[in-house]
Amino acid sequence: MHKQNHLGHVRVVLSHTTHPGNIGATARAMKTMGLRHLYLINPRHFPDQHADAMAAGADDVLRNSVVCGTIDEALRGVVFTAAMTARLRDISVEVKTPREAMPLLLQQAATHPVALLFGTEMSGLTNEEMGKAQVLVNIPTAPEFSSLNIAAAVQVIGYELRVAAQGDLPQGSDILPAPHEQMEAFFAHLEKTLFEIGFLTTQNPARLMQRLRRLYARARLEEPEINILRGILSVATEYNARLRARYREEHRNVSEH
Amino acid sequence: MHKQNHLGHVRVVLSHTTHPGNIGATARAMKTMGLRHLYLINPRHFPDQHADAMAAGADDVLRNSVVCGTIDEALRGVVFTAAMTARLRDISVEVKTPREAMPLLLQQAATHPVALLFGTEMSGLTNEEMGKAQVLVNIPTAPEFSSLNIAAAVQVIGYELRVAAQGDLPQGSDILPAPHEQMEAFFAHLEKTLFEIGFLTTQNPARLMQRLRRLYARARLEEPEINILRGILSVATEYNARLRARYREEHRNVSEH
Repeated sequence: MHKQNHLGHVRVVLSHTTHPGNIGATARAMKTMGLRHLYLINPRHFPDQHADAMAAGADDVLRNSVVCGTIDEALRGVVFTAAMTARLRDISVEVKTPREAMPLLLQQAATHPVALLFGTEMSGLTNEEMGKAQVLVNIPTAPEFSSLNIAAAVQVIGYELRVAAQGDLPQGSDILPAPHEQMEAFFAHLEKTLFEIGFLTTQNPARLMQRLRRLYARARLEEPEINILRGILSVATEYNARLRARYREEHRNVSEH
Repeated sequence: MHKQNHLGHVRVVLSHTTHPGNIGATARAMKTMGLRHLYLINPRHFPDQHADAMAAGADDVLRNSVVCGTIDEALRGVVFTAAMTARLRDISVEVKTPREAMPLLLQQAATHPVALLFGTEMSGLTNEEMGKAQVLVNIPTAPEFSSLNIAAAVQVIGYELRVAAQGDLPQGSDILPAPHEQMEAFFAHLEKTLFEIGFLTTQNPARLMQRLRRLYARARLEEPEINILRGILSVATEYNARLRARYREEHRNVSEH
């Protein structure tokens, strides 16, 4: 099964959310990252127009959300729960980074429901709630201003999950560099033109060409780009050639007089 | 210097933001990740009470923000710009993931100002704006719902930057990219010369210049390299002027016969 389908096994569980706007913003954040299952433990106001307004197109996530009376109800059937914490507690649980924790969660999500657990706006999760989790997760923040909004936290965690679901391989660059021989033909053309316009002289152009090579190597030119650059070189050259040809012609005419 | 201090060199640049609430939410997202320098290019409403309300404790970021009339003003002195794009364009641009791009940006931020560039709510960045960037960045989203709010995008990118600041930077590239204004001067010189030699005509050179911008952006030109390239342009211009003058003179001689 494709790993992005694993996201369909992920529940986002919000405990005792105070502001319904945060529920709506969470729904939107979830949907941008491909998460669809929202569980709400005793939200103070829900459904609510502020939730709808903040969902901005993710109203289906709100509509399909499950309101629960207890955390155990929300986690029924779940095999792995990651609980968010803003604090690095003294309790004897390992606190992981999102980058460490999300691949673990996703692995479980291949076959079973898993959960991401978020606490209230003011005080986060209780010790009891955190005790239900297999792993605690702390999103790194600036120490002097660590008040991450719930939806912002869901956005970051959802992003990490999505990246994890795309696999270990770094995202393929969509540059298709031109083959070696085209690069060489370009450099030959460039050098010839630089001589022709008088930029290079016979005394040791090697160092300058070396710099130009390095510069264009860094750009990792693609074939169409080489064609543009060689087009520019050709126009410069043709222009000169045209002038010379015309000059020769005029000159012949002159001689024939 | 500690790598987290590099974050102090990062500018968040918002172009033509419509809703002031998004500016406030962006300020909050920035501050949670330790980013402090906000630049606003022609915001529709600013300062504004909705911005203040959404900043929620990050009002210092708003207070210290810099309102600019043009993108060039916002990027003055910047050596590396990462522009966000929701689309994976057809034009041959390298689009990187946040995880690939942020370590590169941070590396430059060790010594010089760098910028994160975000477009408008409705249409993102223009091609011209993207042309000013060294790298385009796409935040992975669910294909069926990719409408990431600006503040959410800033949150994700800021998070990646912060994680990058905590980790090992990629091994030292010794590239020191030239500042924005030198790049712009080079592109202006290039365009002028391409007109002069007849490679560009007045009918829509924009697309071609766009491609050339991207190509040289990828190379991340250093100042001495810009000097070499501009030297070539100057010689080509002088050479062509000389040839034209000579042609005119020959032509006059012919007429005088």
